[in-house]
Amino acid sequence: MHKDYIFFQVPTQQDIIKAADRISNYVHQTPVLSSTVLNEIAGCEMFFKCENFQKVGAFKSRGAVNALFSISDSQLRNGVCTHSSGNHAQALARAASLKSVPAYIVMPSNAPTVKVDAVKSYGGQITFCEPNLQARESALAQIQHSTGATEIHPYDNLKVIEGQATVAFELLQQVKNPDFILTPVGGGGLLSGVAIATSYFSPATKVIASEPLGASDAFESFYNKKFIPSQNPNTIADGLLTSLGKYTFPIILKYVNSIITVDELQIIEALKLIYQRLKIVVEPSSAVVLAAVLSNRQLFSNKRVVLVLSGGNVDFDTLKRIL
Amino acid sequence: MHKDYIFFQVPTQQDIIKAADRISNYVHQTPVLSSTVLNEIAGCEMFFKCENFQKVGAFKSRGAVNALFSISDSQLRNGVCTHSSGNHAQALARAASLKSVPAYIVMPSNAPTVKVDAVKSYGGQITFCEPNLQARESALAQIQHSTGATEIHPYDNLKVIEGQATVAFELLQQVKNPDFILTPVGGGGLLSGVAIATSYFSPATKVIASEPLGASDAFESFYNKKFIPSQNPNTIADGLLTSLGKYTFPIILKYVNSIITVDELQIIEALKLIYQRLKIVVEPSSAVVLAAVLSNRQLFSNKRVVLVLSGGNVDFDTLKRIL
Repeated sequence: MHKDYIFFQVPTQQDIIKAADRISNYVHQTPVLSSTVLNEIAGCEMFFKCENFQKVGAFKSRGAVNALFSISDSQLRNGVCTHSSGNHAQALARAASLKSVPAYIVMPSNAPTVKVDAVKSYGGQITFCEPNLQARESALAQIQHSTGATEIHPYDNLKVIEGQATVAFELLQQVKNPDFILTPVGGGGLLSGVAIATSYFSPATKVIASEPLGASDAFESFYNKKFIPSQNPNTIADGLLTSLGKYTFPIILKYVNSIITVDELQIIEALKLIYQRLKIVVEPSSAVVLAAVLSNRQLFSNKRVVLVLSGGNVDFDTLKRIL
Repeated sequence: MHKDYIFFQVPTQQDIIKAADRISNYVHQTPVLSSTVLNEIAGCEMFFKCENFQKVGAFKSRGAVNALFSISDSQLRNGVCTHSSGNHAQALARAASLKSVPAYIVMPSNAPTVKVDAVKSYGGQITFCEPNLQARESALAQIQHSTGATEIHPYDNLKVIEGQATVAFELLQQVKNPDFILTPVGGGGLLSGVAIATSYFSPATKVIASEPLGASDAFESFYNKKFIPSQNPNTIADGLLTSLGKYTFPIILKYVNSIITVDELQIIEALKLIYQRLKIVVEPSSAVVLAAVLSNRQLFSNKRVVLVLSGGNVDFDTLKRIL
């Protein structure tokens, strides 16, 4: 994997416009919030794109709906499947319920009850497996074999990336000509989509990713121009643990301006500021973008900066530990 | 106090429209949020009016700006004063800074540092006093005597009530013909204003207040039709500890449909649902309205219900204790 070059067509401008139309009745147009006090603290003009208010509480709804709604009806009858213990699992289960088709979700046996229940609440059919990648992949292969379901990968899927691209398509109508757009990077689905869309709809805007120092595989891959997998990642930003993919890595290499790393204390400090000043609930993964701005003041000084807050699914035990 | 009848003119329809115009450049038009999942849980259609996103994080900005901007320029030069350790203190300090006049704030010597710092950050001039009502009032009288500053009471002031009335004026343009509007009740400024405005702009809509059982003086006063002061109130909803006033009590008697009490567990449960489902940060006082809906399902079943979330200023220590 990733050793050989792959050739593929990234979503076009027209693809992204069509995707926005395809999903428009099934996802929210999320608001953009600002805070005078936060702007004073950061020394720049910030616009927070609030995907924490998205359906199922994360941008993942966009990619899941777009990918699932792009499958032919005959194929869709067999359902969809994925392995995920995070927001994508809920997003896919919900997207499948909109079309009344089954969603088979492979989850590790140690997945938190709250996440299992969330997937079930959207009608997802869960298969538990041992908590390692091999067990996940083999469980998923078995499901595909026995059901004929279509796999929808959490991020390394061009229709998922196209769906996440609508975040930028939408926000660029809400905020004209920003100097920068920042997103978190985990597997790179959001970052890829946002970077492609920005190259079409606001080519002068620079796209920058923020990544926890404790899971800096994207940073390493980007600057070494060589895929480096995530190994023993350790960060409170639990949505950003995964490695880049065969689609997302080359897209990021080509379309992204730079990647900034932030440490755990910076993430927690930024999270607290978001709660205190914006009065919104975000998950730790969302806070890395503000952490990046606050630790690189010169770069962003007096600029217009859009920060994509990726999601708001955080359990109270985690919150109590952080705040 | 409250023993004799007082006669006064409540704000008219035109007064409220003028107040909305007067404050429009200095406060936010706050959004109305909804959640499909929360509606399913509650069995009715809910619209959350998010005053937690208001300037200084609470509806209090409306009343403070309206009252201060209604004072003549010659009088205003001497500044304004109040005694408050809560959101009104910050709101008044900020409103005064907009006109570059001094705000003298009397605070108890045991006020939390975070609240003291917030008032200072808006340029408020703080006088500390012993933490009892007599000391507060005597400190305030001294300030008035030496500075000529105009007192702006946190709630028992008709211009403050008129300012809070704009919450309803605004939300009734965002949500047409709701069956109910619910607000928390502490001193009754928000409730009075909302009830008066609703009688003008949506007379078929019922206004209901929610109050913690541990501070149920408004409930007692309302149903006994006799002013009963708050005595040893004890609730996590720390914005709702105060007694009704000489203006707010008669207004509430005349314009409010009913008052519902909720216990501490119901408040905490509602607060958690707001964090989990709406993904927003509110203070415990805001959660009483959802608690009232969830504990009176029959009354609200299938109705269109607006819930005013009064503010978002909660410190992390309190949050950690509750969540």
